[in-house]
Amino acid sequence: MNYPKTIQNLIECFKKMPGVGEKTAERYVLSLLEMDEEVLEKFSNYLKEIKSNIKRCKICNNLSEEDICSICQDSTRDHSTICVVEEPKNVFSFEKAGTYLGVYHVLDGLISPLEGIRPENINIPSLLKRIEEEKIKEVIIAVKACVEGETTAMYIAKKLENKNVKVSKIAYGIPLGADMGYIDSSTLEISLENRQQIHN
Amino acid sequence: MNYPKTIQNLIECFKKMPGVGEKTAERYVLSLLEMDEEVLEKFSNYLKEIKSNIKRCKICNNLSEEDICSICQDSTRDHSTICVVEEPKNVFSFEKAGTYLGVYHVLDGLISPLEGIRPENINIPSLLKRIEEEKIKEVIIAVKACVEGETTAMYIAKKLENKNVKVSKIAYGIPLGADMGYIDSSTLEISLENRQQIHN
Repeated sequence: MNYPKTIQNLIECFKKMPGVGEKTAERYVLSLLEMDEEVLEKFSNYLKEIKSNIKRCKICNNLSEEDICSICQDSTRDHSTICVVEEPKNVFSFEKAGTYLGVYHVLDGLISPLEGIRPENINIPSLLKRIEEEKIKEVIIAVKACVEGETTAMYIAKKLENKNVKVSKIAYGIPLGADMGYIDSSTLEISLENRQQIHN
Repeated sequence: MNYPKTIQNLIECFKKMPGVGEKTAERYVLSLLEMDEEVLEKFSNYLKEIKSNIKRCKICNNLSEEDICSICQDSTRDHSTICVVEEPKNVFSFEKAGTYLGVYHVLDGLISPLEGIRPENINIPSLLKRIEEEKIKEVIIAVKACVEGETTAMYIAKKLENKNVKVSKIAYGIPLGADMGYIDSSTLEISLENRQQIHN
C-alpha cells in the first residue's frame, strides 16, 4: 500500500530535483494539497512554459526570454568589459551584488581534461570571437578557485595574449565576515600570498 | 535586474512549500531547465490534477482517489480495529511499517483549547459515530506525545468508557537504534515509567 497514484507520481517528480529525497518530496506534495486551486494552476502552467520560454542569449549565453538578454540590450552598461562566469546563476549573483556594470559571458562549464571537457566543448570559442569582433577592453574571469577554474582562466588568458585586452581574475581570499577559525588552509595560503600592502 | 519572469514566477511558487527559501527555490528552478520537456509536461499535469483527483475517504478521512480509500475497501483487513491518527501521512507511515492490519481514522488535527480547536472541529464526532454504528472491538490512539495529543487521547478514552470498546494508545519511549545520549529527559522519564518487566 502506497500513497494514491497522483500523489506518488508527484513525489517521483519532486525527487528528480537536486537534494530532494523521499521524505522531502512527500512533505512538498502534502503541502500542495493545502494550496489554493488557483496557485496550483499557475504553478502547473509556469512549469509547462519554462522550457519554451527560457532561451539562451545569442550574445552572452545567459538565460533569457528573448533572443538577446536584458543585460546585453542595456545601452547604459559598459559593453567593453566582459565578466566570464561558469553558469547562468553566477550572473544573477553578481547582479544581486549590483556593483558590476559591464556585461557577461556564460561558459556553461569549465575546461576539464580529466572529464574530457575541452575549450571547444564550452562557450570559449564564442567568447574569443566576441572579443575579436567587439571593442573589448577588459575580460574579468570570475570562475571558482579549483583546478578546472584555474585551467580555464589560464587558457583564456593565454589566448588573449598580445590582443590588446586587459585580462584579470577576481580576488580569492577570506569571505567578508567569515570566522578565521573555519577557513580551510588553501584559502588561508592564497589570502597570504595575495596580501595587499597598506603602507610600508 | 532579476531572473527572467518565468523563472522568477516559478521561484515564488516553490517558495510556498515548507522549508523552501530563495536559494533552494532558485536551485530547484534551474534544475528544471535541465529536465526533458516530457518530464516537465507530466510534472505540470500532475500538479494541475492533484487537487481534483485527491479526495478524503468517506469512512476514515484518509487521502484517496475514490470515495472510499483502498484500506477501507480491503476486505482482508480487520475492520473491528481502528487506529486513530492525526494526519493522512501518519497512515502511510504505518502502512510502510506494514504490520498493522486494521483500519484507520484520520482526525485532521488534535484538540487544543489554547488554539480554540475543540473535539467537534476535528474528526472526532465521525469517529464516535463510526464506533457506535460499526462493530468496533479496539481503538488504538496513535497521536504524538504532547499536551494536545494527550488531551485528544483522554477525550476519546473518556467518551468510550462503558461502550464495550477496548481503548489503547501506542507506546512512547526510546526509538529503536537511537543513541541514549541524544534522548531528551521527558522521553527518558516516560521510558522509565513505562518500563516492562522481563522477570522478577
